[in-house]
Amino acid sequence: MTATLDVFDRHESAVRSYIRSFPTVFTTAKGHLIHAEDGRQYIDFFAGAGALNYGHNDDGMKAALLDYIANDGITHALDMGTSAKARFLERFHEVILAPRGMEHRVLFPGPTGTNAVETALKLARKVTGREKIVSFTNAFHGMTLGSLAVTGNAFKRGGAGLPLDNTVFMPFADFIDGGFDSLDYLERMLAGGGSGMDMPAGVIVETVQGEGGINAASFGWLKRLNDLCARWDLPLIVDDVQAGCGRTGPFFSFEPAGIKPDIVCLSKSISGYGLPMALVLVRPDMDVFSPGEHNGTFRGNATAFVTATEALRFWTDDALSREVERKGAIIEEALTAMATKHPQLQPEVRGRGLMRGIALGVEGAADQVCAEAFANGVIMETSGPDSEVAKLLPPLTIPEDALREGLDIMARAVDTVAARIAGADRPAA
Amino acid sequence: MTATLDVFDRHESAVRSYIRSFPTVFTTAKGHLIHAEDGRQYIDFFAGAGALNYGHNDDGMKAALLDYIANDGITHALDMGTSAKARFLERFHEVILAPRGMEHRVLFPGPTGTNAVETALKLARKVTGREKIVSFTNAFHGMTLGSLAVTGNAFKRGGAGLPLDNTVFMPFADFIDGGFDSLDYLERMLAGGGSGMDMPAGVIVETVQGEGGINAASFGWLKRLNDLCARWDLPLIVDDVQAGCGRTGPFFSFEPAGIKPDIVCLSKSISGYGLPMALVLVRPDMDVFSPGEHNGTFRGNATAFVTATEALRFWTDDALSREVERKGAIIEEALTAMATKHPQLQPEVRGRGLMRGIALGVEGAADQVCAEAFANGVIMETSGPDSEVAKLLPPLTIPEDALREGLDIMARAVDTVAARIAGADRPAA
Amino acid sequence: MTATLDVFDRHESAVRSYIRSFPTVFTTAKGHLIHAEDGRQYIDFFAGAGALNYGHNDDGMKAALLDYIANDGITHALDMGTSAKARFLERFHEVILAPRGMEHRVLFPGPTGTNAVETALKLARKVTGREKIVSFTNAFHGMTLGSLAVTGNAFKRGGAGLPLDNTVFMPFADFIDGGFDSLDYLERMLAGGGSGMDMPAGVIVETVQGEGGINAASFGWLKRLNDLCARWDLPLIVDDVQAGCGRTGPFFSFEPAGIKPDIVCLSKSISGYGLPMALVLVRPDMDVFSPGEHNGTFRGNATAFVTATEALRFWTDDALSREVERKGAIIEEALTAMATKHPQLQPEVRGRGLMRGIALGVEGAADQVCAEAFANGVIMETSGPDSEVAKLLPPLTIPEDALREGLDIMARAVDTVAARIAGADRPAA
Amino acid sequence: MTATLDVFDRHESAVRSYIRSFPTVFTTAKGHLIHAEDGRQYIDFFAGAGALNYGHNDDGMKAALLDYIANDGITHALDMGTSAKARFLERFHEVILAPRGMEHRVLFPGPTGTNAVETALKLARKVTGREKIVSFTNAFHGMTLGSLAVTGNAFKRGGAGLPLDNTVFMPFADFIDGGFDSLDYLERMLAGGGSGMDMPAGVIVETVQGEGGINAASFGWLKRLNDLCARWDLPLIVDDVQAGCGRTGPFFSFEPAGIKPDIVCLSKSISGYGLPMALVLVRPDMDVFSPGEHNGTFRGNATAFVTATEALRFWTDDALSREVERKGAIIEEALTAMATKHPQLQPEVRGRGLMRGIALGVEGAADQVCAEAFANGVIMETSGPDSEVAKLLPPLTIPEDALREGLDIMARAVDTVAARIAGADRPAA
Repeated sequence: MTATLDVFDRHESAVRSYIRSFPTVFTTAKGHLIHAEDGRQYIDFFAGAGALNYGHNDDGMKAALLDYIANDGITHALDMGTSAKARFLERFHEVILAPRGMEHRVLFPGPTGTNAVETALKLARKVTGREKIVSFTNAFHGMTLGSLAVTGNAFKRGGAGLPLDNTVFMPFADFIDGGFDSLDYLERMLAGGGSGMDMPAGVIVETVQGEGGINAASFGWLKRLNDLCARWDLPLIVDDVQAGCGRTGPFFSFEPAGIKPDIVCLSKSISGYGLPMALVLVRPDMDVFSPGEHNGTFRGNATAFVTATEALRFWTDDALSREVERKGAIIEEALTAMATKHPQLQPEVRGRGLMRGIALGVEGAADQVCAEAFANGVIMETSGPDSEVAKLLPPLTIPEDALREGLDIMARAVDTVAARIAGADRPAA
Repeated sequence: MTATLDVFDRHESAVRSYIRSFPTVFTTAKGHLIHAEDGRQYIDFFAGAGALNYGHNDDGMKAALLDYIANDGITHALDMGTSAKARFLERFHEVILAPRGMEHRVLFPGPTGTNAVETALKLARKVTGREKIVSFTNAFHGMTLGSLAVTGNAFKRGGAGLPLDNTVFMPFADFIDGGFDSLDYLERMLAGGGSGMDMPAGVIVETVQGEGGINAASFGWLKRLNDLCARWDLPLIVDDVQAGCGRTGPFFSFEPAGIKPDIVCLSKSISGYGLPMALVLVRPDMDVFSPGEHNGTFRGNATAFVTATEALRFWTDDALSREVERKGAIIEEALTAMATKHPQLQPEVRGRGLMRGIALGVEGAADQVCAEAFANGVIMETSGPDSEVAKLLPPLTIPEDALREGLDIMARAVDTVAARIAGADRPAA
Repeated sequence: MTATLDVFDRHESAVRSYIRSFPTVFTTAKGHLIHAEDGRQYIDFFAGAGALNYGHNDDGMKAALLDYIANDGITHALDMGTSAKARFLERFHEVILAPRGMEHRVLFPGPTGTNAVETALKLARKVTGREKIVSFTNAFHGMTLGSLAVTGNAFKRGGAGLPLDNTVFMPFADFIDGGFDSLDYLERMLAGGGSGMDMPAGVIVETVQGEGGINAASFGWLKRLNDLCARWDLPLIVDDVQAGCGRTGPFFSFEPAGIKPDIVCLSKSISGYGLPMALVLVRPDMDVFSPGEHNGTFRGNATAFVTATEALRFWTDDALSREVERKGAIIEEALTAMATKHPQLQPEVRGRGLMRGIALGVEGAADQVCAEAFANGVIMETSGPDSEVAKLLPPLTIPEDALREGLDIMARAVDTVAARIAGADRPAA
Repeated sequence: MTATLDVFDRHESAVRSYIRSFPTVFTTAKGHLIHAEDGRQYIDFFAGAGALNYGHNDDGMKAALLDYIANDGITHALDMGTSAKARFLERFHEVILAPRGMEHRVLFPGPTGTNAVETALKLARKVTGREKIVSFTNAFHGMTLGSLAVTGNAFKRGGAGLPLDNTVFMPFADFIDGGFDSLDYLERMLAGGGSGMDMPAGVIVETVQGEGGINAASFGWLKRLNDLCARWDLPLIVDDVQAGCGRTGPFFSFEPAGIKPDIVCLSKSISGYGLPMALVLVRPDMDVFSPGEHNGTFRGNATAFVTATEALRFWTDDALSREVERKGAIIEEALTAMATKHPQLQPEVRGRGLMRGIALGVEGAADQVCAEAFANGVIMETSGPDSEVAKLLPPLTIPEDALREGLDIMARAVDTVAARIAGADRPAA
């Protein structure tokens, strides 16, 4: 262990996690590359778990940020009016909301995804006067008590130290194999006056479950869910914290489904630069909080507004969306090749846009692939309830050659792991 | 309304709050001063609700931050190891923890106070295997479901849309007048096998309640609470989010009480520059989370680590603490003078260090004082369950003459309000 | 309204319910017949909602009861030892438990079904240290808070005035049409570490749902449920309050499924005479309450023990079981004939043993059938979430001719209702 | 152990409790006497924990009951109209409600105290639309989930296996020594918008806490509590299950306080004969359940209605009330003499009417007194969170000489225990 790594052992809580997968100390980063103290550089296929869709330290945002700070632009302003926030609101409306016909109001919760989700749940409950929330298997919405209750992962739930309540879990999309229709099931439970399902306050869903294992719902399923919610007058909350901001192609992940959710949660890449920021978009008639009924010290993080405004330059046309589509196809092809080559790993290729992964049915295989990739200069992580998915979330802006280079390293990692597993299974000569 | 103010009306959620008290658009800030779009400048007696203890855009931190950004220091790194975080951990240990004999581990939750509190509550429940938390009247701990449950304010609680549970509220310090001993009462409830008080998982307390009305517990009360917790083996959590980082004089607000809480929550001024950051300090034997059992996208906000490290320069000696004490006395003197001059406002002077306020018993008076002060160039807010306290949280670094100037403006505001109220009460001639 | 009926209007709570379906005042009863104040007599197809399986005022039990009371046998004894209870315990073991190879301990909760269920749930939670209970759609387990939480009916649930928690509802047997396998679904939810289903403290099920609409699970389904519980180490609670004591043929309704549940709830017909009494049968290793950890004033209702002991005479051979089977077939035939004759009522014949019903898909039809039957001398009620099932729960001991007479009256009631509905649908000439 | 006692060991659940204090098998009982299998007879100072206020097997009720059963009066009728119920309703109104100016409606829940309490809580929540209930330290309201949540005893609460919620415990009457005013405290918590006390759905109280340790609230305290509830528009529920039906003198224990609670729970002695029965009295404007919204199989226990009607003969004049007062004074005198004689037992005499007790501060002393009394022919039990109170609940109808005989036996038991304890404390010579 280097001297610096030792610092974390001595002083930081045992809860630290990614530093265990990537045991090094990072210093600088640019675009798709991260540099470590020991001089090594890494291709970033993780992108801050989706918080760095535009890569590290984008020059446009960096310039705006440096300028703002250098000129003593107000940094912290609670929810007072600032010119930085005004510019963001106007630009966000102009570039994102108006062209999509969305009249939603922008609510700034605390600057994290879980804060956005907690706010959305409170709103849905206040609007309906009901308590239960429909969430889905393998959902991930955050670690604070309200968000954790709608999160599926048993390990994370166990951390609450309390029974987690007021949530009804329904099977997500294709969670159940073999022709089971999860939305017919949900509707049957809603319809039956004796089903035990109390009429819910709303439904929360990710269009592609990132932490849950790169499970992508079809657009048809999403549209049907949307229509079901409309039919039953249930607020539909899309948690677009990880899948939004272009990660799947369009700005909002739900656009191709042809729906306009009542409430949308954004965070991660909304600031563009990796700075803490979150938004809740609320249909005007559901914008029912009284002034200050929800608040938070850092909901006016002006430096994030500055970079977030600059980041909107990526959305004035559909160039980035098309790029995501193109690169997504490259990944899909590469993953499919790995799957075809190693059927004994029980592979399943998953995902949409630049939110991709390959599930490996052999226990521990995905973890080994990521470790091997890291050893060879690629940062990538697993997801899924059993860490069974090797996940790829590269910056949307990654150059094609770097993408291919990373995929090659990953493919060799899969080869290595497959060989190792085959070796372990082989009886001694 | 200016063109810019109109932006917020059109696009932002109705939940926005401070912009209603301070209807202007702020642009830049430095030290204790904030500037607005219309050219006006304001003395800041609010300091980001305690998030700007070192004033706006401190030059030392600014330089470090500009340098870090300019050199493409990694901005966002989840909880991977970064040199920025390593530097902070080492320096924080050296300057803060070690000199105070604290062996606590540093846990980085999401970068907000409520995230720190949620983490602390989860830890206490995991450590003890129990559920109930003792909190205190007028406590404020945050807006997410777990933190809101331990927050006293009825209006905020109403926003949950759920019954808030697993909390037992006890009277804080002098909440009940006339010789009532709130800790004897708590102990009596703990002792009685029939009291209905399930053995709690822990106790959470603010040493000075900021949002709750600038209520300062005596050091004796805090020491007795600490000893009670030790006697009953209850983890003691101090939420030092607002009162910590020097706000009351010492770095931790609880130091003069001679106690070392099991868990400490810090946020607000910990980054020094108003950037989102939060910490939970955990006694090593309570550091029981498994890796990743609690996580969050922005817990590795490197820009905040950079300024937080720089901010520690204020704590290498006791100069700032003494300054806080001195300026606190100035404020107390000024508030006492206001109180003495206007007994008909039913004034009560409160607070400690630079966390001060004057409660005015006449309904609406405190709000009017703040509005009047704003009209004359001072930014200050109310607190307390009925907004009955005009609160002063100036930067700890405010120059004495600016402090006195602000206090003069405030005193005139009180005069004006007192005259207005007297006029309203006077029968027409 | 008669003078006597008026008494209830003036003095009794509006919650009274069956008196609205049967607006008369009953005086005496014998076997399958009930007599009213106005001289009318009724064939009882309701049997106290299953509490009078042996008919009203059985002569054998009556003699034992009169004798016990006349001799000043102790009436009320809390859970002290009484000879009446000792006799019941011995006889119950000899006649019921021992021949079935059941080593369960007998726990006397308060003398009602809901008390038995609350006790069972507490036990399951204490045994496992977990909180959530798996219950099923259309389940009915009682009206106190714990039992109501595992009850499916939305109207009943609404009476709680609280969010009902710690229950996961799964589809019962064939609740979902078309090849959906509800147990595969349950197992899939248990297996998925990300499904959001916290490992439960147990499963509670009725083999035939009485209040829920006379839904009979197949023996195969019950066996598979039992095996699933064993596989996952989940206590299986059978609520045999309504289906037990011979209602479906065997003493316990689950016997033909070849299972021995961990916990069994009995009440209703256990005393035999309609006196309040309830039992919980507990596998010895789950008999984990400390002395007095659950109690209740009327758990030692000695008069009920006397009749309950006498009622066991019905279970020394299988004569009654075979009779139930035979009469059940008569009812099934009769209901099938009604269904065949009136397809426009969208009929569905349901049930097992002497727990039968016919669901009528036309809104209000079942209610009308029961009202018409009452007008013609048969007491019967509806069940199901929308009161869509005309339910038959005659005494097991009803003579065949009386059964046929009642069925004829019912058949004519169905004819009348069918004609009325057809008339209402027919356009005016 | 006798052969019969062994039956319970072999077949009954370990939760059985009183049989451990009184290890014998009872057979018959009359008035204040109980007879055991072994020929011994006991003076009953326990009276079914207050369920046998008129003694065992009262001849008047017995005759009515035998007559009703012999004539095949309907035994079980759910909540259908029966002449037995009509007679009870009319007579109860005439003898009890009308003379007291109470217009309450009579609601029949399941036939146990906990059922009555659960119903009362549901009603209060439905009426107010709120969730939290104010209960008091050392309260005992029942063992089902809703009632257990408002019960103070830690051991009983632990049996729930769930966090018990939606209750706020306040100190009962003189629970806190030394001038603490528990109602001022409650009002202060209600008044403070920041106290964390959500506006409650109601208040539930026992006027004398039986299980909680024979703690009698003063009439002044009850009147002030009543007025506080009126002032805050909080439904006041008096749980008169143990203290009602004349136990403290008047029919309702709260009468001398000059109050009319909104909701009253009765059970235990309401049937007069020890048969399961319970009532909830509801102010007409709070009688808000829809038909069937709360129900229960045994709410129409006709045999109990028969004896309950006959029992009302005791309440046509105030003779019994005066008798209770007179006998209560005899007990108080006797207990005071014991206390005076044995100060080293740290005695405290408690109670009102024929609900009396002596708290003994020496650990285990009260238990020993009861055991010693039992050995000498008196049945009495302890109560209080630590079983520290030797409790006396003789039948109200006990003859004076038997009362004095029982008290003499008890006094000798106290002497014996005092001597034993003194011996144990004395150093060996």
